[in-house]
Amino acid sequence: MDYKSDKFFEQVLTVSMEKDRQSINIIDQTLLPGTIRRINLSTKEEIWEAIKKLRVRGAPAIGVCAAYGIALLASRIQKEDFSSFYQEFGELKNYLASSRPTAVNLFWVLNRMDSAVKKNEEKSVNEIKEILFKEAADIREEDVQISRKIGEYGFGLLKERKKEGKEIGILTHCNAGTLATAKYGTATAPMYMALEHGWAGEELHVYCDETRPLLQGARLTAFELHHAGIKVTLQCDNMASILMKSGKIDIIFVGCDRVAANGDAANKIGTSGVAILAKHYGISFYVCAPSSTIDMETPAGDKIPIEQRDGDEITKMWYKERMAPEGVDVFNPAFDVTDHSLITGIITEKGICHAPYDKAFKELGIGR
Amino acid sequence: MDYKSDKFFEQVLTVSMEKDRQSINIIDQTLLPGTIRRINLSTKEEIWEAIKKLRVRGAPAIGVCAAYGIALLASRIQKEDFSSFYQEFGELKNYLASSRPTAVNLFWVLNRMDSAVKKNEEKSVNEIKEILFKEAADIREEDVQISRKIGEYGFGLLKERKKEGKEIGILTHCNAGTLATAKYGTATAPMYMALEHGWAGEELHVYCDETRPLLQGARLTAFELHHAGIKVTLQCDNMASILMKSGKIDIIFVGCDRVAANGDAANKIGTSGVAILAKHYGISFYVCAPSSTIDMETPAGDKIPIEQRDGDEITKMWYKERMAPEGVDVFNPAFDVTDHSLITGIITEKGICHAPYDKAFKELGIGR
Repeated sequence: MDYKSDKFFEQVLTVSMEKDRQSINIIDQTLLPGTIRRINLSTKEEIWEAIKKLRVRGAPAIGVCAAYGIALLASRIQKEDFSSFYQEFGELKNYLASSRPTAVNLFWVLNRMDSAVKKNEEKSVNEIKEILFKEAADIREEDVQISRKIGEYGFGLLKERKKEGKEIGILTHCNAGTLATAKYGTATAPMYMALEHGWAGEELHVYCDETRPLLQGARLTAFELHHAGIKVTLQCDNMASILMKSGKIDIIFVGCDRVAANGDAANKIGTSGVAILAKHYGISFYVCAPSSTIDMETPAGDKIPIEQRDGDEITKMWYKERMAPEGVDVFNPAFDVTDHSLITGIITEKGICHAPYDKAFKELGIGR
Repeated sequence: MDYKSDKFFEQVLTVSMEKDRQSINIIDQTLLPGTIRRINLSTKEEIWEAIKKLRVRGAPAIGVCAAYGIALLASRIQKEDFSSFYQEFGELKNYLASSRPTAVNLFWVLNRMDSAVKKNEEKSVNEIKEILFKEAADIREEDVQISRKIGEYGFGLLKERKKEGKEIGILTHCNAGTLATAKYGTATAPMYMALEHGWAGEELHVYCDETRPLLQGARLTAFELHHAGIKVTLQCDNMASILMKSGKIDIIFVGCDRVAANGDAANKIGTSGVAILAKHYGISFYVCAPSSTIDMETPAGDKIPIEQRDGDEITKMWYKERMAPEGVDVFNPAFDVTDHSLITGIITEKGICHAPYDKAFKELGIGR
């Protein structure tokens, strides 16, 4: 695939609105990496099911899909007066919100769309319908621009490390890529920005942790980078130590789900281990974090709740047969918290923050 | 299962000679953890196939199986004169050696059996046949006693950490258990010794890394400890960091494949990462190593070759479908080397060694 002609994003783009505004086009992530299939979501049931069944996943990508979805569904409401329109809009909104009750970003987006309606109560229903399409497009474009800016700051770090004739080794964990966002991803944004600046895919060499138990690194990150023409190597999570020791890793980029005011960062399980190894081997470890994920109300990482998931994900999922004895206890936390002392820098769309993080965040106007 | 009545080992014992000396009894490890099936190996083809297909695995266990195998097969040789007997013995020996050409211990055992034959050339063939049965039994018994002693030293470390009414949290990686050895395992020996000393299974809580890509921790270690009545929790390798951070881990025991003179220890991939996390969190990290694995000819770990294995183990094995894009490069080292500076102590059958390791090994008479 040729990244530069944008054919890459045509095929891999997580979610887009069709020109006729009658359906949303997504890449069905449940079929990756084996099959690249784009599908159209037209009815409210199709949109709900796509979010529910993880055909579209990743907080920003779910948000864009829900924004497009509610705009599309609202445009079909056959009411002329505001209060009838708003009642039906509310029902559709609640219906979409029920698709993934734990996805905070889903509610944030739907509430933003709701505000757009209420704010324009005095306008005609037809005008409001147009405003909703515009708001959804804005939500997508804002995510694209945030990723671009994170990517540019990260690309600066790659340029600093560039040596003539030598590839730059990058380690990443889980998927904070295009498949999780509107376009560039967060941890992958520096890599895609490097391509946009004319670097060849072989100048980068990205090592993807497979990321047990759900294998997002193997299934999604290795897939998208490989298709973008970037040199990719896949390894098991427990191989990161020998990889760092070998000298092949110049820098580490990871995404994050939530950052506390002191810089402690919650991300996919295993991230804190990668950070400890990086510190041991003296490798720079960067967290890519849109400022919306920085939560100044949470003073430190120990206040971030960690979701415990079903042990079957470890013992049965993916496998042909059960891979652990019946009845054995399983520990399956979805996230862990990386201590701020292990983080070289937190890359936001407003700049790269360094410790002390609370001060750095405030200086960039994050969180107040 | 009741460990104390030895019913546990009756069911789980890796390999034993039947009383009639006409077959070897093994637990078929390819069926674990789903099915506990003991099978008898009687012909040379059956013994060869069991080693080849990993029905029996782990260096000491393969060694015992091969020793029993060659003794059993030699007892059936229909020759009265030494040179005819020895020629047929040599053919059987070479045949068994071809089952797993990379298993160093297999050759070591077969050569020891060969020496036993040559050393007793002046004796009758019938006497030599008895000597071979005795030598095989000695090989097994030596392994049992080495594990017992390692277990006793390790149990001493558990006793030091025992607090009334509190379980001791132990982390282990891969399988250095009964299923890899003649009876007690190496990393598991301190746990089994604790049971033999009357501790209840609930006084220990062993956290098993699943150990990607071949899942020996999930399939084998979790299985054998669970069946011995020890409290077991299984987790993915990348969850060890949050586990240690939670304060649940008091001590770590791992096995090893080879230890260099300076104490650098090669073991299953991921072990060095566990050691780095342990150092970060201030948790004791012990390597359980029969003195035969300590190689004083190898000055440091960087001289230990690391086997690279087929990437399909990561991308296809176990799974219902391919879990990474076609054509993606895969890094799949079988082992890594843990730097001696990360190791709290190396537990041998002769005592616990501390840094500087070369001096400690020499003081215990290891390696000269």
